[in-house]
Amino acid sequence: MDARAYLLERKPVIDAALDAALPPASEPPEALHTAMRHLLFPGGKRLRPSLALAAAEASGAAPETALPAAVAVELVHTYSLIHDDLPCMDDDALRRGRPTVHVQFGEATALLAGDALQSEAFAALAGADAPADRVCAAVADLARAAGSRNLVGGQVDDLGFSLSETDVDRVESVHARKSAALLTAAITAGARLAGADPALIERLARFGRSMGVAFQIADDILDEGEDDPCSLVRAIGLDAATRRAEALLALALAELEGLGEGAEPLRALARFAVRRSE
Amino acid sequence: MDARAYLLERKPVIDAALDAALPPASEPPEALHTAMRHLLFPGGKRLRPSLALAAAEASGAAPETALPAAVAVELVHTYSLIHDDLPCMDDDALRRGRPTVHVQFGEATALLAGDALQSEAFAALAGADAPADRVCAAVADLARAAGSRNLVGGQVDDLGFSLSETDVDRVESVHARKSAALLTAAITAGARLAGADPALIERLARFGRSMGVAFQIADDILDEGEDDPCSLVRAIGLDAATRRAEALLALALAELEGLGEGAEPLRALARFAVRRSE
Repeated sequence: MDARAYLLERKPVIDAALDAALPPASEPPEALHTAMRHLLFPGGKRLRPSLALAAAEASGAAPETALPAAVAVELVHTYSLIHDDLPCMDDDALRRGRPTVHVQFGEATALLAGDALQSEAFAALAGADAPADRVCAAVADLARAAGSRNLVGGQVDDLGFSLSETDVDRVESVHARKSAALLTAAITAGARLAGADPALIERLARFGRSMGVAFQIADDILDEGEDDPCSLVRAIGLDAATRRAEALLALALAELEGLGEGAEPLRALARFAVRRSE
Repeated sequence: MDARAYLLERKPVIDAALDAALPPASEPPEALHTAMRHLLFPGGKRLRPSLALAAAEASGAAPETALPAAVAVELVHTYSLIHDDLPCMDDDALRRGRPTVHVQFGEATALLAGDALQSEAFAALAGADAPADRVCAAVADLARAAGSRNLVGGQVDDLGFSLSETDVDRVESVHARKSAALLTAAITAGARLAGADPALIERLARFGRSMGVAFQIADDILDEGEDDPCSLVRAIGLDAATRRAEALLALALAELEGLGEGAEPLRALARFAVRRSE
């Protein structure tokens, strides 16, 4: 299966659901609602939401079952990028070739747009048309992934990294929390909405954690350790980092063994996320 | 019933639940986990969480039923105060007689502590030991109250207020979104966990909205319009604002008619919130 084709095919469905999940830009306060959409549209590849849809397929359900999880995870991802770009954090003026939200709308509005996107993520998930026990479990997955033990804690430790550090475990601990946790939540929350049983959820969670760390190592490889002190390439070199990413990808794919055709999109997305070439 | 005694009686239970909902300050990243607790403990009067517990009582259940809602709303309230104090917002150095979180821990950590508190709020609520349909409805209430149509949107419009504005409807629209919405979510989420029926939830929501606006007017009266351009005292004067708060309180209390003894804590908290004297 061609991951790029899968991503392109899913993007319009995901974008429509994201659009429907947020107040229109024309609704007051217009500056806030416009700022909330600035980074979200046109957005990126929609890898996280596509993983949610693919997880529903791997669970034997229609991909649309997982749309509320797809939307929620993309909104959390977007809020975290907006806050990461703020002057007190990475102080970035550009993202995806456009002015960052605080450059375009001011710092207070960027802060509040991020805050509201996090709330709307949980609103989107809580409003899912699925059995309530599945929805609750998905909300718990997302909240755990977004919290201080994962996304935010990883961000804090990433900020604290110094250029001279080369501790592999510390790098991978940041990768696991800052990147892999939210990718994993996309997968497990999508699978939960699709009705996956606990054993499958556990396998998909292990898949997500290995794939997610490998995904972040792939980012380190693309950066060649230039931007971020917290980089496996910086810690162990390009060749060893590449081998480590491949080993984690193999570990991830092994979790999907026996899941058949339904898991093909998830396998393809994992290979794409790690190799960025197929 | 004495509202102050009720608040004092509930505070240890609420504080223990808040403590249990967050990672200990000693857990890495320590700076983050310490910052998340800085404003939360010793905290304020715990009016919002007490309203959640009182709403459970008004619904005929034990107050503890509503503890996850109480915790979640207080965490959202705390995150919003931390972000409000940031340099790009109100730039406050002191709150409740202590250094604000960004003064004590730096701006990046304060930003991230607020972000994580919002996530942990939803984690606390999603983990409630209650029927899943009640939990989902409570999560939806909180997410709606925290989002761009309420808390965050009210904050944006509050920042945009000028000293010369005296439009009563605009002031009350900010009060309704910035203050009343979260107070109302405390009440409805608490009642939902307690199993209140839809008709009672609707009455409690109307109670919350009237009481919440009156609560914010009481704040304006205590400030005498000095701090915030968005003040009903500034817009219509002290006497008219006092009469308006009393009228809203009467409207709120009328919603509780016929609910009997179980609603006594909610009535007492409403009178206290608006008059601050009994």
